[in-house]
Amino acid sequence: MTVRYRVECAADAIEARARALAVEQSVEMPIEAVRDARVRAEVVGEVLAIDPLPGTPQRFDVVLALAAETVGDEPGQLMNMLFGNCSLQPDVALLDVQLPDAMLERLPGPRFGIDGWRAAVGAAGRRALSCTALKPQGLSAGALADLAYAFARAGIDVIKDDHGLADQPAAPFAQRVPAVQRAIARANREKTNEGGALAGHRSVYAPSLSGGPRRLAAQLGVVRDEGVGAALACPMIVGVPVFSELLRAEAGVPLLAHPALAGHARIGAPLLLGQLFRLFGADATIFPNWGGRFSYPRTQCQAIAGRARAPLGAHAPILPVPAGGMSVERVGEMLGDYGPDTMLLIGGNLLAAGDALPARAAEFAARVAGAFEHHDSRP
Amino acid sequence: MTVRYRVECAADAIEARARALAVEQSVEMPIEAVRDARVRAEVVGEVLAIDPLPGTPQRFDVVLALAAETVGDEPGQLMNMLFGNCSLQPDVALLDVQLPDAMLERLPGPRFGIDGWRAAVGAAGRRALSCTALKPQGLSAGALADLAYAFARAGIDVIKDDHGLADQPAAPFAQRVPAVQRAIARANREKTNEGGALAGHRSVYAPSLSGGPRRLAAQLGVVRDEGVGAALACPMIVGVPVFSELLRAEAGVPLLAHPALAGHARIGAPLLLGQLFRLFGADATIFPNWGGRFSYPRTQCQAIAGRARAPLGAHAPILPVPAGGMSVERVGEMLGDYGPDTMLLIGGNLLAAGDALPARAAEFAARVAGAFEHHDSRP
Repeated sequence: MTVRYRVECAADAIEARARALAVEQSVEMPIEAVRDARVRAEVVGEVLAIDPLPGTPQRFDVVLALAAETVGDEPGQLMNMLFGNCSLQPDVALLDVQLPDAMLERLPGPRFGIDGWRAAVGAAGRRALSCTALKPQGLSAGALADLAYAFARAGIDVIKDDHGLADQPAAPFAQRVPAVQRAIARANREKTNEGGALAGHRSVYAPSLSGGPRRLAAQLGVVRDEGVGAALACPMIVGVPVFSELLRAEAGVPLLAHPALAGHARIGAPLLLGQLFRLFGADATIFPNWGGRFSYPRTQCQAIAGRARAPLGAHAPILPVPAGGMSVERVGEMLGDYGPDTMLLIGGNLLAAGDALPARAAEFAARVAGAFEHHDSRP
Repeated sequence: MTVRYRVECAADAIEARARALAVEQSVEMPIEAVRDARVRAEVVGEVLAIDPLPGTPQRFDVVLALAAETVGDEPGQLMNMLFGNCSLQPDVALLDVQLPDAMLERLPGPRFGIDGWRAAVGAAGRRALSCTALKPQGLSAGALADLAYAFARAGIDVIKDDHGLADQPAAPFAQRVPAVQRAIARANREKTNEGGALAGHRSVYAPSLSGGPRRLAAQLGVVRDEGVGAALACPMIVGVPVFSELLRAEAGVPLLAHPALAGHARIGAPLLLGQLFRLFGADATIFPNWGGRFSYPRTQCQAIAGRARAPLGAHAPILPVPAGGMSVERVGEMLGDYGPDTMLLIGGNLLAAGDALPARAAEFAARVAGAFEHHDSRP
């Protein structure tokens, strides 16, 4: 595999620094002490290129060839070989990776992808999706269910738990998830029975899965028993091997990846949130959109969305989910940026409407669903 | 719980920035939209202090009170509430946390601690421990077992897998671990049968555990079946919930935490590697010592070691393991810095000795074991 790092280094030291990085991310020992000829030839990392960055004399892109055999086919080990030890070296950032076709095939990738989300909510044609969050944490399961009911009646496509909702005493998972799911199911039935513009629309609930394998197995049991239609998890907190091996394999519903604890990384966000989370099994990826509470620049946001949908072996495209302090006023602009293969997530701005929440949520859902209406009848 | 962050911010904006951080790490929504009185009073984060840093007008320490109820008792959720969302904000670093006694009690903590390591290797009295690593990856299981045999005969206390060794084709876990364990057991028997200075010394093997819960369960089965005496894992790669809930609970042997993927964090290393990994169940914590391949300053290294051993509720102290390009020449100086409650890890420097590896390894083991000999007979 071919890996691109950004390295801060004096020009006269960059060649040695690049070689040291290739050793750190492969055999991790003095190269002269590697006696095995096969290991020297096939396992030790190799410097393919050192590209100076124009205008910044102390910065270089270093491109390494690392042996695919050091990864096997396990997502955690891929993270380890890409950025395990050199994460401890502050002069290095991980920018990008080209995986060989065989590894690309063996990595799990999304099970549902964009089409799976549209099928889950009953979206006709190629339209964008709306998403909101149940919060604040501290509310009871009943209060969260009431909120979910209001959002579902308003026609929001995906109603997710705040990623801070785990298994706290205020709203334990085993109480919260059935209560919320039943409230959403009731709203879905009513929409269809009333036969208006939302007839046939299915809001889908994405509860937040968290904890170790035993807790997660219990939570997945609730998801199955209650017929919940999606799920949310933070790959960098539950661990990417758990995200892939347990959640992706066993949830049986589309997965929404949340970037909590992922942003402290000196790992390019398009690579981590756009491509790697997708390869590990996410069906949609939340990221901080520009102009909100986070400072990711617009070009980077568009690069994340690009990676979520770009060709990637045989893996399905997934939905980019711009979020983080967005407002209903920005729906048009955001859909202009991201197009119809997108899920817009607005949380606090709907809650801030107070008594007008149902109206603002309905406006949000309708604007998102209707934005590409001319596409709708010609899928 | 009381959490200290370092925030880069203009002086006239720091109050608003601190309040926004308190909201981000608690209810994550506009505060005026929180209608529930209990949530406003008990769940919303609170700014306790804003301390300017002398000489740096744009830097402040912001101390927040966050509600313990948002964490419950789950290690992953603790990471989430401490640094989940604000990891995405580059102006914030997590420095420290004071946990309430009740949470401290509920977090698992080390099962074995320093005494457990000494018991495992049969160390009489209060002495430092030696540790080395099996590498490079790419070697066969048999070649790694030969290396382990040499290290065990030399009297090294703990022989760990390189953290890059996972389940690759060159030395699959199910082949490698039995081969290495048997080689070490044979060396241990020979040391005792020969009745020299190493009679009664037990070298302990710490294989690297990796992957998702299914793979880990299979690996733990091998560890148990073969009578392996310790284990290594990377909490930030397998995920802290897995480290606590699965490995700490079920491995049944002392755990060595490896910092791979942990260093990219804007999380204070003494907090993460010293205190949090300990709370999550590590019995020893590897960190990059100063003056090697990594640039952690000496004061930070000593702070990590301090946190590993400082009083922490009822939790046992654990071994700090300075590492990362260390050499046998530095043993005296390192033991002077870290004292007898320490495990020194030297890998590449032993391997670089070539044919003299057994002699250099024996010198390393003897210097570490003998450094505090005057303590030995008075435990």
